[in-house]
Amino acid sequence: MIIVIQCTDQVGLVASITAVLAKAQLNIVSMREHVDEANNRFFMRLDVTHAGNGDFIAPKLRDVLPADADIHINPLPHKEVVVLVTKEYHCLADILVRNFYGTLGATVKAVIGNHDILADICRRFEIPFYYVPHEQVSKEQFEANILEIIQKYTPDYIVLAKFMRILSADFVKHFPMRIINIHHSFLPAFIGANPYKKAYERGVKLIGATAHFVSNELDEGPIIAQQIIPVNHSYSAADMMKAGREIETAVLANALKLVFEDRVFVFANKTVVFD
Amino acid sequence: MIIVIQCTDQVGLVASITAVLAKAQLNIVSMREHVDEANNRFFMRLDVTHAGNGDFIAPKLRDVLPADADIHINPLPHKEVVVLVTKEYHCLADILVRNFYGTLGATVKAVIGNHDILADICRRFEIPFYYVPHEQVSKEQFEANILEIIQKYTPDYIVLAKFMRILSADFVKHFPMRIINIHHSFLPAFIGANPYKKAYERGVKLIGATAHFVSNELDEGPIIAQQIIPVNHSYSAADMMKAGREIETAVLANALKLVFEDRVFVFANKTVVFD
Amino acid sequence: MIIVIQCTDQVGLVASITAVLAKAQLNIVSMREHVDEANNRFFMRLDVTHAGNGDFIAPKLRDVLPADADIHINPLPHKEVVVLVTKEYHCLADILVRNFYGTLGATVKAVIGNHDILADICRRFEIPFYYVPHEQVSKEQFEANILEIIQKYTPDYIVLAKFMRILSADFVKHFPMRIINIHHSFLPAFIGANPYKKAYERGVKLIGATAHFVSNELDEGPIIAQQIIPVNHSYSAADMMKAGREIETAVLANALKLVFEDRVFVFANKTVVFD
Amino acid sequence: MIIVIQCTDQVGLVASITAVLAKAQLNIVSMREHVDEANNRFFMRLDVTHAGNGDFIAPKLRDVLPADADIHINPLPHKEVVVLVTKEYHCLADILVRNFYGTLGATVKAVIGNHDILADICRRFEIPFYYVPHEQVSKEQFEANILEIIQKYTPDYIVLAKFMRILSADFVKHFPMRIINIHHSFLPAFIGANPYKKAYERGVKLIGATAHFVSNELDEGPIIAQQIIPVNHSYSAADMMKAGREIETAVLANALKLVFEDRVFVFANKTVVFD
Repeated sequence: MIIVIQCTDQVGLVASITAVLAKAQLNIVSMREHVDEANNRFFMRLDVTHAGNGDFIAPKLRDVLPADADIHINPLPHKEVVVLVTKEYHCLADILVRNFYGTLGATVKAVIGNHDILADICRRFEIPFYYVPHEQVSKEQFEANILEIIQKYTPDYIVLAKFMRILSADFVKHFPMRIINIHHSFLPAFIGANPYKKAYERGVKLIGATAHFVSNELDEGPIIAQQIIPVNHSYSAADMMKAGREIETAVLANALKLVFEDRVFVFANKTVVFD
Repeated sequence: MIIVIQCTDQVGLVASITAVLAKAQLNIVSMREHVDEANNRFFMRLDVTHAGNGDFIAPKLRDVLPADADIHINPLPHKEVVVLVTKEYHCLADILVRNFYGTLGATVKAVIGNHDILADICRRFEIPFYYVPHEQVSKEQFEANILEIIQKYTPDYIVLAKFMRILSADFVKHFPMRIINIHHSFLPAFIGANPYKKAYERGVKLIGATAHFVSNELDEGPIIAQQIIPVNHSYSAADMMKAGREIETAVLANALKLVFEDRVFVFANKTVVFD
Repeated sequence: MIIVIQCTDQVGLVASITAVLAKAQLNIVSMREHVDEANNRFFMRLDVTHAGNGDFIAPKLRDVLPADADIHINPLPHKEVVVLVTKEYHCLADILVRNFYGTLGATVKAVIGNHDILADICRRFEIPFYYVPHEQVSKEQFEANILEIIQKYTPDYIVLAKFMRILSADFVKHFPMRIINIHHSFLPAFIGANPYKKAYERGVKLIGATAHFVSNELDEGPIIAQQIIPVNHSYSAADMMKAGREIETAVLANALKLVFEDRVFVFANKTVVFD
Repeated sequence: MIIVIQCTDQVGLVASITAVLAKAQLNIVSMREHVDEANNRFFMRLDVTHAGNGDFIAPKLRDVLPADADIHINPLPHKEVVVLVTKEYHCLADILVRNFYGTLGATVKAVIGNHDILADICRRFEIPFYYVPHEQVSKEQFEANILEIIQKYTPDYIVLAKFMRILSADFVKHFPMRIINIHHSFLPAFIGANPYKKAYERGVKLIGATAHFVSNELDEGPIIAQQIIPVNHSYSAADMMKAGREIETAVLANALKLVFEDRVFVFANKTVVFD
């Protein structure tokens, strides 16, 4: 059973929490805690041995925690996600394969694409694909069309697996800290469009990828995971893009694993990640 | 104040320990714990806010811990080390520079070399250097000579900074888990002499370095830290050696930092590292 | 057009080769060369601008090269492969996805498994799958059964994508330096079975994966690519295996790309890789 | 003997160059070439076997190369450098140690600091240290004072080893592409002051360091080398700074090695690095 807690920090929190667990005869398999001293904020993730429903422990914990405490017991045991894509297959295919073999840590309920090129692979894995073109409709209408499909599935998270349209603040506010994006650069370097072209022009020696929660500011949401690979003068912008796809796939897969295993906390536009 | 605890695991340990701290009004800045389930072993490192001597807390902790508990309060606040070297300067120079600027986390009391080539740099940093040749004496006598010097300084740790002689079990048993060696390969690959030559002959694409505690079995002691760098077909064995020196220096520095900050526990020939 | 050359080294080889190209008005886009001085061996890979068939250049090059020269012009423009698997899906699925989208650099003609669990994903991508059980047949018969299927496809390369049986020398000799294996350790550490269990027991801080050509000696063939990821005391052997799968997939994909783009030369049980 | 060539690209350059070498009975140990197709620019580095002075080859090469060719034969066989510092010791100490043991690939002629705190370590290695304070003088005067000292030594390169003042365009133009700086971030992320504070505030999961040539635009000069290390939520800005120092030292050392071995070419604000 996983227990995650986020609240204002105060003296004795760990003692209080672990006393509750000990009294309930729950053995701690692993425990991670972090205090953000600048923000006086306490974060904890516990893995405790317990078979069956663990809801009974929540009120006991609430008794000893500050009033603002967020407590989740075995949170979202089987997450459900909707994936948004454009044309590139690499992140989506990786997600579909893990979903197919039950190693994603979540279930892909549907895929929405503003192009229809990725319908084929979804069909092969029997995942519903919705083609929602962005052309010849207003941005408002486009997003309304996407929203309608998403709401049918009430997913826990929305994954932007190389979805190349910028979502409006209005759209994002429906899913606060529940939209996960893969950005094809080492943020905050190369915010916005064409990062590989910019990286090529700047002559960098490493390129990166960043998985982050989507906030209202473009590419400014809380970072979950980042990774880089070396490049050199022989790489064209296209070569960088090709090489970058490998780490985009890896970074997004890693970030999803962390989120789906309840290892990621968000506060003050940053993440605490107990990996 | 740092508190490190190692003992047999049992239910409620974290609750008991943190209750003791809470009662003493000690605030936990950071806490790391690990349970080795296979060995039923509990490890914890706490950083708590406390000015002045913290010895008063040890008996209170002992009251709630199993009889076999190892407890250290602010252990070895200022570690002292003796460094053993042969001819290569890179690890020693790095240690001497950090020692000089007070960023080593320990004090170098003396350097012992079986060659005298590194006496010069020790003199420049005003560190006593002892030349103890291994030639024309028996191994027993050689080690006795080293031991005599070390015992004068009663160091907490002995650092083998590219000391190219194998120490006997008799010598090692004087300093159980207190001798730290840098081995110039990614152990357990290339145990023993000439790892770079072996790596070259095998045609590996990565070379490594390993910092470990010295046990009686050659290159078999608990591993503290490891790192690698890529190499390719254009590297001769000498090139690998040259490239390897950079990571030998980095890995040993990192391992020493971890040990001197009381982040490394040893049990069953493995380490638990709270980095 | 790609030109790859391997021969005994001699003075003036580059001048002779490039003079032939210049005379034929072929512009060099990129050129990589390596001289293995210990073995007096010359390796070169050229990418030259040329539309249409380039076979005319081979005899002109042969005129200026030593008698033992291996010359391949645009070698194996469209490689074909047969993949051998057991139960684990991760490497196979990655290969099938790349194959499906035309980014593998080769065509997967068939998959052979000694279990039938991976038949499903092959069917989804319309790749023939052959179930060849190893049980209740002799090793000779088992290999003969595999060989019969392979020979139907006359593939350029055979990829062992987590094929967990050891192939006999008799089998291997049919495909010298044409069988590519992914081994789930940082060779030469942890040769043979259960490397993750061994890595866990040794307490290493990094785990690795190695792609190599298969020779007659177990896990001793020429290494093409290697990669590592950090692990720590909190990883069980099963966690290491799970983490290792990510780099197994990445290393094998990278090695295949290098081989299929004619960037890998073999000589004296080592590779020259022009990446 | 090292030969480096940079010129406009044209068909047959490699053939022409290598024919000249073959005719002179010079054997090529290693050769690296690159064509920047976007800029129609040719770069080559040759390592050829030749004892004694190699100047005789330059006019023979010039005969076959475009008029704009830059040719250097065994260029700057023993580079001399002046190092500028402020207060942080780590890069300077690393450079002084390598200089002392003859492994820097250049000779440190003098160190100039705008604080005097690093005079001590220079004295220990018998390197002249000049204290040039920036306070109570105009920026013009400050730079004039530095320039005067530098000009006394006519160094090939100036190394900014954590020199925390921005040099004016007027100063920089005296040493075009001859000033090497270490910037404590993964450029172009976190240009300017306090990169670690910015990285902390952004919540990045990797921090970097960048060695680059200094141009007139702040932190915009050609990048020579970059490296990163992972960080996490437990790192304060100060922890990031401390961790960053390790890669600053490593990246600067690596960049200097590359430059001093004539492996770095500059064109169009980017570098070609034959590492």
